[in-house]
Formats: sequence, structure tokens, C-alpha cells
Amino acid sequence: MTPIVSIVGKSDSGKTTLIEKLIPELIRRGYRVGTIKHDAHQFDIDHPGKDSWRHRQAGADTVVISSPAKAAIVTTVRSELTLDDMAAAYFGDVDIVITEGYKSENKPKIEVLGENSVELISPRSEVFLVAAAAGANGAGIPSVSRDDVAGVADEIETRFLKISRPAVVELLVDGKPIPLNAIMKAMVANTVMGMASSLKGVGSPNRLEIRLHKGRKRA
Amino acid sequence: MTPIVSIVGKSDSGKTTLIEKLIPELIRRGYRVGTIKHDAHQFDIDHPGKDSWRHRQAGADTVVISSPAKAAIVTTVRSELTLDDMAAAYFGDVDIVITEGYKSENKPKIEVLGENSVELISPRSEVFLVAAAAGANGAGIPSVSRDDVAGVADEIETRFLKISRPAVVELLVDGKPIPLNAIMKAMVANTVMGMASSLKGVGSPNRLEIRLHKGRKRA
Repeated sequence: MTPIVSIVGKSDSGKTTLIEKLIPELIRRGYRVGTIKHDAHQFDIDHPGKDSWRHRQAGADTVVISSPAKAAIVTTVRSELTLDDMAAAYFGDVDIVITEGYKSENKPKIEVLGENSVELISPRSEVFLVAAAAGANGAGIPSVSRDDVAGVADEIETRFLKISRPAVVELLVDGKPIPLNAIMKAMVANTVMGMASSLKGVGSPNRLEIRLHKGRKRA
Repeated sequence: MTPIVSIVGKSDSGKTTLIEKLIPELIRRGYRVGTIKHDAHQFDIDHPGKDSWRHRQAGADTVVISSPAKAAIVTTVRSELTLDDMAAAYFGDVDIVITEGYKSENKPKIEVLGENSVELISPRSEVFLVAAAAGANGAGIPSVSRDDVAGVADEIETRFLKISRPAVVELLVDGKPIPLNAIMKAMVANTVMGMASSLKGVGSPNRLEIRLHKGRKRA
């Protein structure tokens, strides 16, 4: 599962600004980054009159707009998606997911403290780093300056990226790679490793391949 | 895989209008509908200044905005997604996907012919139905009026829905259902059926369950 870090804090503590600087810093270090933003209201992303908007108005459950550079998906949910739901469905392709807010989900958190703040809004046990403005008090939790983006990225990298990058899982059909999201990769890896582990002499391999062919065995 | 039907036709032939009427007709018949619209340009779905827009501007690969009723995802693609890519990734939860356009992909097509049109823009072999305006000529392919939405829905239902609704595939962990998209359902079904088919006495079961428990066997 792609690791998730939540950037939490009071309104105007500087969450969006920190995320805005953190994303390019993580990209510069070679990671692909996804973000999740919660919206309590009926957010407006469909444009009235556009064809895709007309599809949604007519009752389509999910509408995709696809272009050569990006795709946008608007989908109806029966109840609000959890961060794990979203990580599984939409973030198989990134190395880390940063959420803005989501203080009530129990993901590891960086809390941003605005000027002269002293109280955390999150349970202390969930906060691994405080990013504090001048005059703010880190409340005894490891703390960096809110402007020290490299320091924040260092903590994220050490805790979540260097240890948890997924093993390579590839599935090729007739030589063509089949796209697999994170859950499917985990499912394939666990299934194959599970099968193999019961065979004599397999142990804990670093690499395992299964090849199925019709016809004659290749030389 | 969720079935895909493409509604194609020249500009202003009435594609969006037909889709707009077709969606509620299919919903009334008990189906969940998804749509895909192609956009050749840099479509504008992120709103400048919004937090999610700032995340994208900062370089985030995928941005999700989540609310209690819907979720919106904007994701970078390295090359344009195919219809099969999108069906696999985003439409596991619907019964049918209707695309507006996509004449060059080889999905089954309904071509809409505007007033006095006689020429199809699609290869005849890919068109199973013509939805024709007054005075248009169906070119020898089975044809209904462009306004006969029930007739169009009948054709779609007969060809794609009554025969291809997927079998029920459920995965429960500690009693809690795990969400599975269409590909994952197919993968689980094929894996389990594949394993079971090699066992004596299994034959072609209509129902198959696997239960793994730690601890004592239940009564």
C-alpha cells in the first residue's frame, strides 16, 4: 500500500503552503507524489453546460474526461471514501500520498503550528513531526521550522520512502506489460510468494518468475 | 470487463443529447452507467487558486478531492488512456460504459446520423445500430429513430447487459467486505476457479467459497 502522510493544523496555519513547497522537494528527490484534499461541501468541478457535466446531470455514476496529458474522473460515492480506499483505487502509481487535513483518520501526521500556537489539534501519538512557525511551541514532539521544507522532506523520506518502496511486480501477457495498481501488485506478489514458499528449496528468494507458455518450451 | 459502447457521429449529429436521454433510461432499467468523453485540448477542471489546483501546480501526479457524495480525481497520464485502461481503472462499479466519440477505437458503436445524412463515419463492421434523424438513411444497418431512446436502450440491453453481468465475487476479511474492482473480481474468480477445477468432484460449480480462519474450526 502506498504510504500516506497527513498534514494537519488549524485553518490558516500554513498547510497548503507547506504542501505546495513539499511536493516539488519530493519530486526533486525522485518520488512521484499524490495528494488528497477533503471537501465538506458540494465542490464544483463539473462545468455547467459541458458535455461531461450533462452526463453527470443525466445520472451517470462515474464520468471520465480523457486527454493526452491528463484524465479527470468524477464519481458518485455512497459514503465518503476513506484514505485507504483512495490509496488503493487511485494512487497505485505514486510513491507517497500527502493529505491536506484528515485529522480524524489515524494516519501518521505532521502538524503545522501557526504563529504563537501552542496546542496541537491531533492526538500526540499520531504526530511524528511538528512544523512550527516562529514563536510556536512544538509541544515536546520533534519539531522543525515551518519553512524548513528540506527538513520536513528528510523526515518523510526516512520514515516512509526508503523502507517501503514496493518490490517490482510485473505481469507480462504475450510480452506486453499489464498495468497493475498497488493492490493488484500486492495480490500477485503475495499469491506467487505464498505458492512458492511451500516448495522445497525456495526459501526467501529475491526474485521469482513464473512463465506460462502454450506450445514448445523455449530453448 | 465492463462492456463499453461508443456513441459516434459527426459534430452536431446529436450524440450528447442521445446520451443524456439514454443514461436515465438505463438507470430506470436497473443499471449503473458510466461515461467517457474525449477532450483533445487541455480541459479546465482544476480551478485556479483552489487548494487542489495548487497541489497540481506544485507537481502532484494525482490529486483527489473527496466529499461525502462524490470524489474527483485529476491524474497525469504519460500517454492517452485507452478505453480498456479506463474501464479497468475507473468503472469496476458500473454495469455499462457509454463513450461519447472514440470513433477510432474498435468498440461496438451506435452511430448517430443527423438530418439528411447518409454517410457513416465509422467502419460498417463496428456499427451495430444507427440512430437516425428524420430523412437520414441508415445505410442498410439496423436503424432506429434518434429520438427512440427506449429502442436504443433495448439494443444495448440485449447485446451487452443481459448476457454479461458478472458473477458475484466477494472477498470478506474478518467479516468485512473488501472493495474489488472488475479486474480484481475477475482475477479472484479465475484464480479460485482455476485452483478448484483441478480438484476431484468440483466440476462446474455455481457457487464456491473459500474460508480461511485462524484458531478453532467453527461449529
